[in-house]
Amino acid sequence: MTASSLFKVSGNSDENSLISFPTPNGSQPYKPSKNHPQLKSENPQHPHSPMPQLYLIRHGIAADRNPQTYPDDRQRPLTDAGVKKTRKIAKRLAELGLQFDHLLTSPLIRAQQTADILHNAKLSPQPEIFPALAPCGPIQDWLNWYNTLPKTSKNGDVAIAVVGHEPDLGQWAEQLIWGEVREKLIVKKAGVIGVNLPDDGEIIGQSTLFWLVPPRFLL
Amino acid sequence: MTASSLFKVSGNSDENSLISFPTPNGSQPYKPSKNHPQLKSENPQHPHSPMPQLYLIRHGIAADRNPQTYPDDRQRPLTDAGVKKTRKIAKRLAELGLQFDHLLTSPLIRAQQTADILHNAKLSPQPEIFPALAPCGPIQDWLNWYNTLPKTSKNGDVAIAVVGHEPDLGQWAEQLIWGEVREKLIVKKAGVIGVNLPDDGEIIGQSTLFWLVPPRFLL
Repeated sequence: MTASSLFKVSGNSDENSLISFPTPNGSQPYKPSKNHPQLKSENPQHPHSPMPQLYLIRHGIAADRNPQTYPDDRQRPLTDAGVKKTRKIAKRLAELGLQFDHLLTSPLIRAQQTADILHNAKLSPQPEIFPALAPCGPIQDWLNWYNTLPKTSKNGDVAIAVVGHEPDLGQWAEQLIWGEVREKLIVKKAGVIGVNLPDDGEIIGQSTLFWLVPPRFLL
Repeated sequence: MTASSLFKVSGNSDENSLISFPTPNGSQPYKPSKNHPQLKSENPQHPHSPMPQLYLIRHGIAADRNPQTYPDDRQRPLTDAGVKKTRKIAKRLAELGLQFDHLLTSPLIRAQQTADILHNAKLSPQPEIFPALAPCGPIQDWLNWYNTLPKTSKNGDVAIAVVGHEPDLGQWAEQLIWGEVREKLIVKKAGVIGVNLPDDGEIIGQSTLFWLVPPRFLL
């Protein structure tokens, strides 16, 4: 049975679409742009230049906001279910072979607990509190930190993880990738964004997105 | 041992960052914009409106381009390794509980084979060849098709999968989400992009990204 016999055809085509559909240049094979970032990374002839990776990880499920129970919202912790689920996520990330050379966290308790769990799953060295990862913190602080960092490590390309909050993490990712914020990335609690960073020069608007995953697709 | 005792502090902060770090409005808790798409979807008080999902899936690893072996590039098939890997991906997608109400495929052999594998893993009904999913095909054809589709199904919100090529799939996703193409999404062979679509009205520039995954993070 051929592949085509399984298919019915829809759209603007006849039944013999394997033979007769048009291509942009007659019968020339399609060739995507040589500078497409994916082609570069998939082409063994391209010399390997460092491609640091940034993993932006949202904190796990936390207790509901409640000014009576948590008058200082920064103290609001993960729930027991949140701890459990975040541990499963961390275990999965370790099984996927991830290793972070640096792990920075927002100072809020729910983020620190999340970073703690990642560290305990042997994904990273000791986490560092990074105040700009608190809600509404300035990305510029992180950019300054990144600029001083060596871009390779004993593991190869440097891999950095940051634990923080929405909508900031999605916004930071959009700024790095597209140079502007449009709030188009859906980042669930304990979800992960993976960004390839340029190893030097301007990184705002110059990065690419290689991973975005909610917990339900990690477990 | 408290969470904070595990951490060293970096950036512009003192050691007591749990107590003394600044917030934008003094001690007011942070509140993201009410219209943030994620808040809407996570708020049980928001009535559920249909949120059709589109899964854009790149074909699996195929034989190398070779004008001698494959003078007609459209006939170039998956390799044995590509078939094997794509089957594992399909199995994983099924384990994650995915079910597609529609599966459209580019007419190129490597795409049809990929769609075949997804169908055989019971992810979808019979695939349909959709010529506009060939390289350089017009997204408008797909938009016209989508506009006529019921946006709910017996499974709930309608879920559509399309099998195609890079850089087109990444470009289609960028058009749907950001309204323009910047080639910032890295889409590997047998990788998946997941897009939430509006259920009516204009969808270009009005969709959101909930998933982007290369095979190495699925297996």
